Amino acid sequence: MNGNEFGRLFRMTTYGESHGDAMGVTVSGCPAGVELSVEDVQAELDRRKPGQSMITTSRGEPDAVVVNSGVQDGYTTGTPIGMVVQNKDARSGKYEPYVTAPRPSHGDFTYSAKFGTRNWGGGGRSSARETVNWVAAGAVAKQVIEQSDYDIEVKAHVNQIGDVEAPEVSFDDLREHTEENDVRCAHPETAAEMQELIEEYQKEGDSIGGSIYFEAQGVPRGLGAPRFDSVSARLGQALMSVPAATAFEFGLGREAREWTGHDRNENWEFDESESQSDSEDASGDEPRARGDPRPVGNKHGGIQGGITTGEPVYGELTLHAPTSIPKKQRTVDWETGEEKEIQVVGRHDPVLPPRGVPVVEAMLYVTILDFMLLGGRINPDRLDGQAGEYDTPYHPSSPDNE
Amino acid sequence: MNGNEFGRLFRMTTYGESHGDAMGVTVSGCPAGVELSVEDVQAELDRRKPGQSMITTSRGEPDAVVVNSGVQDGYTTGTPIGMVVQNKDARSGKYEPYVTAPRPSHGDFTYSAKFGTRNWGGGGRSSARETVNWVAAGAVAKQVIEQSDYDIEVKAHVNQIGDVEAPEVSFDDLREHTEENDVRCAHPETAAEMQELIEEYQKEGDSIGGSIYFEAQGVPRGLGAPRFDSVSARLGQALMSVPAATAFEFGLGREAREWTGHDRNENWEFDESESQSDSEDASGDEPRARGDPRPVGNKHGGIQGGITTGEPVYGELTLHAPTSIPKKQRTVDWETGEEKEIQVVGRHDPVLPPRGVPVVEAMLYVTILDFMLLGGRINPDRLDGQAGEYDTPYHPSSPDNE
Amino acid sequence: MNGNEFGRLFRMTTYGESHGDAMGVTVSGCPAGVELSVEDVQAELDRRKPGQSMITTSRGEPDAVVVNSGVQDGYTTGTPIGMVVQNKDARSGKYEPYVTAPRPSHGDFTYSAKFGTRNWGGGGRSSARETVNWVAAGAVAKQVIEQSDYDIEVKAHVNQIGDVEAPEVSFDDLREHTEENDVRCAHPETAAEMQELIEEYQKEGDSIGGSIYFEAQGVPRGLGAPRFDSVSARLGQALMSVPAATAFEFGLGREAREWTGHDRNENWEFDESESQSDSEDASGDEPRARGDPRPVGNKHGGIQGGITTGEPVYGELTLHAPTSIPKKQRTVDWETGEEKEIQVVGRHDPVLPPRGVPVVEAMLYVTILDFMLLGGRINPDRLDGQAGEYDTPYHPSSPDNE
Amino acid sequence: MNGNEFGRLFRMTTYGESHGDAMGVTVSGCPAGVELSVEDVQAELDRRKPGQSMITTSRGEPDAVVVNSGVQDGYTTGTPIGMVVQNKDARSGKYEPYVTAPRPSHGDFTYSAKFGTRNWGGGGRSSARETVNWVAAGAVAKQVIEQSDYDIEVKAHVNQIGDVEAPEVSFDDLREHTEENDVRCAHPETAAEMQELIEEYQKEGDSIGGSIYFEAQGVPRGLGAPRFDSVSARLGQALMSVPAATAFEFGLGREAREWTGHDRNENWEFDESESQSDSEDASGDEPRARGDPRPVGNKHGGIQGGITTGEPVYGELTLHAPTSIPKKQRTVDWETGEEKEIQVVGRHDPVLPPRGVPVVEAMLYVTILDFMLLGGRINPDRLDGQAGEYDTPYHPSSPDNE
Repeated sequence: MNGNEFGRLFRMTTYGESHGDAMGVTVSGCPAGVELSVEDVQAELDRRKPGQSMITTSRGEPDAVVVNSGVQDGYTTGTPIGMVVQNKDARSGKYEPYVTAPRPSHGDFTYSAKFGTRNWGGGGRSSARETVNWVAAGAVAKQVIEQSDYDIEVKAHVNQIGDVEAPEVSFDDLREHTEENDVRCAHPETAAEMQELIEEYQKEGDSIGGSIYFEAQGVPRGLGAPRFDSVSARLGQALMSVPAATAFEFGLGREAREWTGHDRNENWEFDESESQSDSEDASGDEPRARGDPRPVGNKHGGIQGGITTGEPVYGELTLHAPTSIPKKQRTVDWETGEEKEIQVVGRHDPVLPPRGVPVVEAMLYVTILDFMLLGGRINPDRLDGQAGEYDTPYHPSSPDNE
Repeated sequence: MNGNEFGRLFRMTTYGESHGDAMGVTVSGCPAGVELSVEDVQAELDRRKPGQSMITTSRGEPDAVVVNSGVQDGYTTGTPIGMVVQNKDARSGKYEPYVTAPRPSHGDFTYSAKFGTRNWGGGGRSSARETVNWVAAGAVAKQVIEQSDYDIEVKAHVNQIGDVEAPEVSFDDLREHTEENDVRCAHPETAAEMQELIEEYQKEGDSIGGSIYFEAQGVPRGLGAPRFDSVSARLGQALMSVPAATAFEFGLGREAREWTGHDRNENWEFDESESQSDSEDASGDEPRARGDPRPVGNKHGGIQGGITTGEPVYGELTLHAPTSIPKKQRTVDWETGEEKEIQVVGRHDPVLPPRGVPVVEAMLYVTILDFMLLGGRINPDRLDGQAGEYDTPYHPSSPDNE
Repeated sequence: MNGNEFGRLFRMTTYGESHGDAMGVTVSGCPAGVELSVEDVQAELDRRKPGQSMITTSRGEPDAVVVNSGVQDGYTTGTPIGMVVQNKDARSGKYEPYVTAPRPSHGDFTYSAKFGTRNWGGGGRSSARETVNWVAAGAVAKQVIEQSDYDIEVKAHVNQIGDVEAPEVSFDDLREHTEENDVRCAHPETAAEMQELIEEYQKEGDSIGGSIYFEAQGVPRGLGAPRFDSVSARLGQALMSVPAATAFEFGLGREAREWTGHDRNENWEFDESESQSDSEDASGDEPRARGDPRPVGNKHGGIQGGITTGEPVYGELTLHAPTSIPKKQRTVDWETGEEKEIQVVGRHDPVLPPRGVPVVEAMLYVTILDFMLLGGRINPDRLDGQAGEYDTPYHPSSPDNE
Repeated sequence: MNGNEFGRLFRMTTYGESHGDAMGVTVSGCPAGVELSVEDVQAELDRRKPGQSMITTSRGEPDAVVVNSGVQDGYTTGTPIGMVVQNKDARSGKYEPYVTAPRPSHGDFTYSAKFGTRNWGGGGRSSARETVNWVAAGAVAKQVIEQSDYDIEVKAHVNQIGDVEAPEVSFDDLREHTEENDVRCAHPETAAEMQELIEEYQKEGDSIGGSIYFEAQGVPRGLGAPRFDSVSARLGQALMSVPAATAFEFGLGREAREWTGHDRNENWEFDESESQSDSEDASGDEPRARGDPRPVGNKHGGIQGGITTGEPVYGELTLHAPTSIPKKQRTVDWETGEEKEIQVVGRHDPVLPPRGVPVVEAMLYVTILDFMLLGGRINPDRLDGQAGEYDTPYHPSSPDNE
């Protein structure tokens, strides 16, 4: 409604402008009993932070997160987790020329048209700096999932920059190679090509678009409410919220328009690899004669009828080129009535997907956990706990904390 | 949450299964004072209904809507509008073979995995029959918008079927040509090609995918809340909810990944065509020296920073091929443990976009109206009314209705 | 937001005006696998329906409910349950005099002030007729709870009419005596007095206020989210929604203002009655040395810190006297500018609590079930089911239903 | 859902435990262009803060608020306002004895039963310390309303402590006398009596209950959505959320049960005091022949049919006695199985209503503003602004802020 809330049972509420005093996120609905440290969150923020390499903005933000509530003696308490990240290296002066002379294709004009004002420093609320909040919330969601009975893992990488496209990679490649290079492409050779391309545009004072491939393994079957709360619809909202997103696809995505039903449909077979005893454990009943029905292939991207099949959920997100570029452009000043030239100096990323990788992963963790809670797979009150049992609280932190 | 609600201030809540007794939608948050007739709703339902042509299912549904509340003497009263469409031509028997033997790539298995049961006739709740509710709600939204002070118009057409792609068309083409042919493609020559292609696949017992282009003109600038409630994120959810959707794009969409910032960015200029007196009316203040800032071009699809610019909002939605096809496929029966052949007879569309056009338009009307209400452009209580004024109610329908 | 939705995971969305065509309610979020028949719902509606006795309105409504979706072969499917009740005996003509001359203390004026119009027949949307929807939804919630592993029971009765107050009664009295008399007071002698009092006011063309006592037994400890979603806050909303409600209390209620902490506080003791083996089963761990902590007494009304203690949840709801009375009153016509006398003929209840009893019970069932789902006590997808298991669907209703 | 969010369009999201690092609140949906200073918020926090007098806890909290976002150069920007208050004087050691031995009637046990753990210092999340967040949000809402076109004012005072009841006071008394004494009772003589009573219980190591009367003047007619979002239902939720609340009433409240319809109903008359030209301005049409219909009296508490009439909205909230008292009580330790004596030392208020007054006022401001936005009376995007106009942003704070 107000644009700063995402999730239903697991939910983040954010605030902050690029050059405001601080960014903040409140995570509501995190079950109690999850081991959570500041380091768990910081590790993800460090993947997203500026100044990591030559191809990211040089803004020097430590992005040190402070956890104000909801965690005691290293475990979550079930109450809201308030986190704050101070903004340290804002240099707003450089943005003064754009106060009434909007940068081309940035949110400058639309924010002013909506609110009659805006925090104009660094792009204010429209800046991708906001995603620091998302990554912090995603880090919490990731911990909950990792400590649950489910073996879910989310990975993303940069699969295209400009016209340089990575070949298909395995999930193991995503695990091993994504963080090896500045571009965060899991295919090392392509990463090198992408790096070269980016630097070229950067030198020209220009920027370039790209895309992120994401994949979630281990998502159990049966998640997602039919229709408007289908997994595809909610991922659509989650990922189209990412700054600069212009296309969201899952499974065959845009290509599906060219496939026939017969070619795209995937027959069902029994999953014979499945151990019978597992099957028994799962149902609590007599074992099935055969394994679970399983589709031959995953062109459907892990989602059928809006609900997960148990196959990996995967797709792509396209991010347009950063709009803030040093190259000459033209704009108008609506106060003075002047037409003028504009060269956006400041410190800006020449390409978005590399730093977008942890953002996309965070949104996936948040969305998947939310579906897990809504589908009764993880108890909303307490992880691995017995509802209504009071048990022993975590130990008092210190005997002398008066 | 439960999957059957969409919208925040203007909101629809739906129910119904393909072969259940009836489909129903409750429209909440419609302002009072909007002229609304059953015919207004029926006209849109007729565009969507089955059996319109050779390339739609032959199921014979009149789809006659009944309005149970919220309208009095031809005007909305501000209270919820309950609508019901009876299902008349359900033939569930044909679906019995699939009760425990799921059709390939349909929602049969995932619904059962989620709920442990499902209304299996005609695909039950997962059937695209549900969209009859959306079109009814969209028809209400359209009336509200058309009777408001704003001149907003939404049109969609089928821009690709298989590998047959329509050239770019004008908004006037959309207005004039879309409804002229069964495919609902605004480019008549392409429509003919598409028709041919569809019939070919139909003859083979197969189906084919396609896509829908949509465009909304007259959407005022400044709509959309930053971030998770941006226009792009909410459209992402709205349109990825459409049955069979696999990709959502706006503006340059997927192609944006290949564009540089300089090429994609659009300079600002003054809109000199704008009449000074208009500008004066709008602001209530002294006229601006020059027209409004306006981007040179609309590669941004009417949305910058998640908020509308005032340029047309446009994009594309990809729908995969219908999964129910007569061609032979294979499946398994999880009850008997048998592997078997399957030929989905029943009555099914060989392609989805032609009937999807009114569905997409409906979702856009609902989404845009919701943003208009949230942004204070249309009063949530009463259209063109003075808040707190009680005035004269609509005339009693009849003196002798006791 | 729009006033016609209640509940979070278990949720009802309603529509309908007193003299409109039909009342309708969509129940979203009902788990699959619950045995549910039209008769289950009808039985509760019959308790609420008009014309039951001399002290209810003589409007002759069969209130026959139709279930349009969400149930198959006698079991819920997890998808929305759409229900409709036709209005059969509306006589709107009698309301014409009030179109622009509001009845004293009724919603006539405020509805017109909000919407600029209103469905004026029978009070339209402001009529207590709306509660037929609530009772239908409550009947569904009751079935879910009764078929769950929990032994929760909700009962209400009329504990005061005018100055006639019932003595405290036991839960068994509520079970046995409430439905024995027209007043729905579980204390038969008081019921007789109340009946007499009501008839007296009725004869005078007047009406009278009263209150309802409610109690829920078996509500497990640990339900309710801290703060704004506490059990007390949500019951506050739920019950203050009941037409004519002017006061909501739980536990000591209003009297608590006169109690000291020491007198109101309840010491903790071990519940020695508790069977050790039960305790073992519940926790899955070794049995506790002693029983559960249990407060000595229940002045706290089953809620501490906004969360349930496991003791019965009880309280009171006050309903003011019906405003539609035959006795002479004065009003003004805002259209003609006339001051005039008014005698509200129509068919009206002389007192609200007797028919309010099933309404209050319904709201409690809905609210409690919602908390059970939110707290992970009942799986939101399927009752007693194994998440992700697809098992056997309910049997096809008939082999020849084509 | 998660208990830490309140409001629909104007919305607060809170976090924090009594002895955690900090309390925090995010205010979403505040229109842009509202003058707002840290001092505006601090002034309200100072009314609520501990250590103000002998009859409040001696905990020494400065409660200094920091505003992290959403405000620029003294004006709101329409984006979320993040506020943080550090906890400075927490002495958790004193609470160690209660970790597994719950204080009588406090939330200690229920929180542990729900979450399996809790932040046990100072009552953690169940502490009334949380209301510091509400008061901060209320201060923002108050500024929005005060700077709007509406002349709405909310006041509350303590109208009963134990059996000492204040006589009815005027709104002017509320304005003038409430803040004059430590008890915050607008009737000075009664305030003195209350003070004496409180001190007496305090000396005995006991505490006492009480109640708060609230009144909102200038609330325009026509606010509130029918039924579940009625003003009475939403106030019911808002105020029953206040820690220790056990009863909520409006208008005649609990007494209404003893009134007849004829005595309680209020006839309509024309408000002849109303200036004709005002009426003309408001409607934009020809002036009405007579003033507005107005009820003779306000036993209805400003709400009819759930919607405001334009008369003052008033009611009462009962708060039970604080449960943390030095007097001897008994409890059990669920870990050791011991029964034991308990004397809650720490620093606690002997009575809640005096510090509850600003909390109740805050909840009313938040609720009323939310209804104003939902009813289209205040534009959700910008106060007094022209939707879609971009105008001039607030002046850059400083030329040299790089």
